[in-house]
Amino acid sequence: MSTTADDDLAFAPLAEVSRRIKARELTSAALTRLMLDRIARLNPTLNCFITVCADAAMAQAEALDRLLQSGLDLGPLHGVPVAVKDNMATAGVRTTAASRILADWVPDEDATVVQRLKQAGAVILGKTNLYEFAYGGVHEDYGETRNPWNLGRTCSASSSGPACAVAAGLAYASLGTDTGGSVRLPAAACGIVGHKPTYGLVSRAGVVPAGYSLDHVGPFARTVRDTALVLNAIAGPDPRDPAGSRRAAPDVASDLGRGIGGLVIGVPKRQPSELIDPQMHDAFVAALAVLEREGAALVELTLPDHLLSRTAMWAISASELAESHREYLRTRAQDYSPTVRGLVRQGAFLPAVEYVHAHRVRQKIIADYKAVMRHVDVLAMPVVPFPAWPIGAEEVTVANVTENLMGSLTRYCPPFNITGQPAIAVPSGFDHEGLPLGFQIAGRWHEEAMVFRVARAYEQATDWHRRRPPLQ
Amino acid sequence: MSTTADDDLAFAPLAEVSRRIKARELTSAALTRLMLDRIARLNPTLNCFITVCADAAMAQAEALDRLLQSGLDLGPLHGVPVAVKDNMATAGVRTTAASRILADWVPDEDATVVQRLKQAGAVILGKTNLYEFAYGGVHEDYGETRNPWNLGRTCSASSSGPACAVAAGLAYASLGTDTGGSVRLPAAACGIVGHKPTYGLVSRAGVVPAGYSLDHVGPFARTVRDTALVLNAIAGPDPRDPAGSRRAAPDVASDLGRGIGGLVIGVPKRQPSELIDPQMHDAFVAALAVLEREGAALVELTLPDHLLSRTAMWAISASELAESHREYLRTRAQDYSPTVRGLVRQGAFLPAVEYVHAHRVRQKIIADYKAVMRHVDVLAMPVVPFPAWPIGAEEVTVANVTENLMGSLTRYCPPFNITGQPAIAVPSGFDHEGLPLGFQIAGRWHEEAMVFRVARAYEQATDWHRRRPPLQ
Repeated sequence: MSTTADDDLAFAPLAEVSRRIKARELTSAALTRLMLDRIARLNPTLNCFITVCADAAMAQAEALDRLLQSGLDLGPLHGVPVAVKDNMATAGVRTTAASRILADWVPDEDATVVQRLKQAGAVILGKTNLYEFAYGGVHEDYGETRNPWNLGRTCSASSSGPACAVAAGLAYASLGTDTGGSVRLPAAACGIVGHKPTYGLVSRAGVVPAGYSLDHVGPFARTVRDTALVLNAIAGPDPRDPAGSRRAAPDVASDLGRGIGGLVIGVPKRQPSELIDPQMHDAFVAALAVLEREGAALVELTLPDHLLSRTAMWAISASELAESHREYLRTRAQDYSPTVRGLVRQGAFLPAVEYVHAHRVRQKIIADYKAVMRHVDVLAMPVVPFPAWPIGAEEVTVANVTENLMGSLTRYCPPFNITGQPAIAVPSGFDHEGLPLGFQIAGRWHEEAMVFRVARAYEQATDWHRRRPPLQ
Repeated sequence: MSTTADDDLAFAPLAEVSRRIKARELTSAALTRLMLDRIARLNPTLNCFITVCADAAMAQAEALDRLLQSGLDLGPLHGVPVAVKDNMATAGVRTTAASRILADWVPDEDATVVQRLKQAGAVILGKTNLYEFAYGGVHEDYGETRNPWNLGRTCSASSSGPACAVAAGLAYASLGTDTGGSVRLPAAACGIVGHKPTYGLVSRAGVVPAGYSLDHVGPFARTVRDTALVLNAIAGPDPRDPAGSRRAAPDVASDLGRGIGGLVIGVPKRQPSELIDPQMHDAFVAALAVLEREGAALVELTLPDHLLSRTAMWAISASELAESHREYLRTRAQDYSPTVRGLVRQGAFLPAVEYVHAHRVRQKIIADYKAVMRHVDVLAMPVVPFPAWPIGAEEVTVANVTENLMGSLTRYCPPFNITGQPAIAVPSGFDHEGLPLGFQIAGRWHEEAMVFRVARAYEQATDWHRRRPPLQ
């Protein structure tokens, strides 16, 4: 049975357990055991882990404890249990991408980000649930991840598992992937922090691609500082990712406390097509007021049409997905879920001129965002028009209008996959039913430090991250 | 009637006429008049100009003469008459791209490269002939450009006009575009120098696109130094080209005399698919011997399959061309030549997965070339398997094998459109029929100075550029 002390420890910030491990108040083995026990108890309900690496994690934790005793400290993640999305290759551990097609795939090598987590001393608890191939829908073999705040709700998409694990106190941090919002959306749905880095900052080598020109790997944690610590561990040049930047990664954790006095925050004018849940909107307006109170200047501005980014994102990702699935579509078509098979087939039917056109539109959107970003330090925007939706829903009703779920979901996030700018989702409260709300802060390319600094200032002024989901 | 002195002046190097203009031995007006007279006499045969801007050029020349008298010297191109390919926008002067579709297009603004030529003091003589939309074939409204070395032969493709004008002494330099070899091929066919810069170094703003991710603008001239002077004038950042590099352009003219002692030149092993005319091959082998004699070390190496680059180049350019022609194909299909209509239609039928696949192949090719370029300073390679072909031919016989002309033509050039590396074509002699031969030197990205330096060392040791075509 769990105790209050155990619960407190399970929901403590990563930075705090890290400090306690180094102070020898806590061992990695004990912490890992706590997480594994919680996973054993809660995962049957939440369904956020596909594979739990219990033995390997305990062995790793014990070795890391010995390493620390011997005087070698690998840094802030040393001994800290974390989880990764199951589309990231793990040597010797099956990597399914929540698909039947890859159900038995056991990679020989770790993805670069997994390797870097290990080198930083993190303990890998296991592989977490996601949409099939991180795209479009849940495969029946893996099922929906349940939201720790309300078991009848989803954890949004596609990185449902890694977000859920962190929100439920089953890991201190985790990694997801974001092609059209798939880190920021589940972060907002689960009341945690999720960050999509600048395109090229974090390697995708060894990650099953969805759309290679839009795919990003990014961290989840319960606080902004914890998220920054994980980003520091995984960011930086990797020759194995051909789209990787050669710029050295910035230290995003050291600048967090500087406050936001004098910063200029751009707030986009509401677009004609824009529908947003009133409670989500109120929380966003309240968040802006907090940022202003903390000393930032708000500037209203006009952004390129979000629908254009969404359309380009779908055309580009569907084409790129279909290209990487050519062989599967020919030989394993029956193994897809109907939804994802349909999307891959749609992608395979798209003419090249549409894809090229989407990239030309993309260039124009990037130019427009570059112009905007000359006038502001960051942008503040909603992440998603509505909180976590009921499991099984295919439509959502937002401000009295019923919309297709996937369409409505991909309103605010795709612009930053299209432009490659860094964006962080932070919790901004709860609706009347107790479901988490969130908003995002986006910055200039490679200025993650600025994005994290604004997020941290907001977090410190609000403290939403101290609430815990009503789990038994 | 022309005199020997006039001929000598017409074929003098750009650097020399530039010096004489500055020394007041020569006016830009006299030089421009000489060029216009030669164009009036020879263009009816050669068909290298589509539009001659006689009045504008004379007015420009006179103004530049007055400017120089007043003490303002715009640099090495001050007062020098040049020509540009007719796919580059010229304010107030029709820009046809040798198509019926754009036959009456009069742009409001100059292309950036035209603007830069003018700012550097060059006199724009007119707009030169090309393949329809710089792609695939000649439109009957414009006809084939004839080769000054043999009027029964073409000037190759697609920048036939600008290459011909320089080879025939109708301009001291010119600009072409190169999507799959279209600067280097006509340079080799006409016995002049042609350079395809690093992708992003020279702006394409205002240039009618063929395939935007492969298109390059590059200079032609009769000597390596002259070519370098033109590149210096046109290169450098331009916010109007979204793919433009932000790196400052290097000075490629100042380092030309350093010689090549100690440099390492990579020589690709002959590939299984490779057919090459014996005389072209002998000239290449002789060129390598010259480079070795000049102090360079030759290293044999294996390059990625040229056929792969060619296939990727066609898939990418056809898709990108079809995208920019969507409206024309719908509304003006009858105005294309059958060949180009067919190619645009083919492009419009290509599925996005093929285009994406071509880009994935492209990434692999780039990675392979990056690995190769770590071991050598430059690569030396043929430009084309055969000299200028007879007008009207659709096939060529190379080493006793008959091949499709376009296929055979695009053997050695596309790799550097795919990778974006700088490459320069230089004359390497003449075959038994007096047709020019050439080879190319390719370098590391943004290392044009190295490429020009090797080309100059070869030119100095051989002097092929002093020969003149047998024009009446």
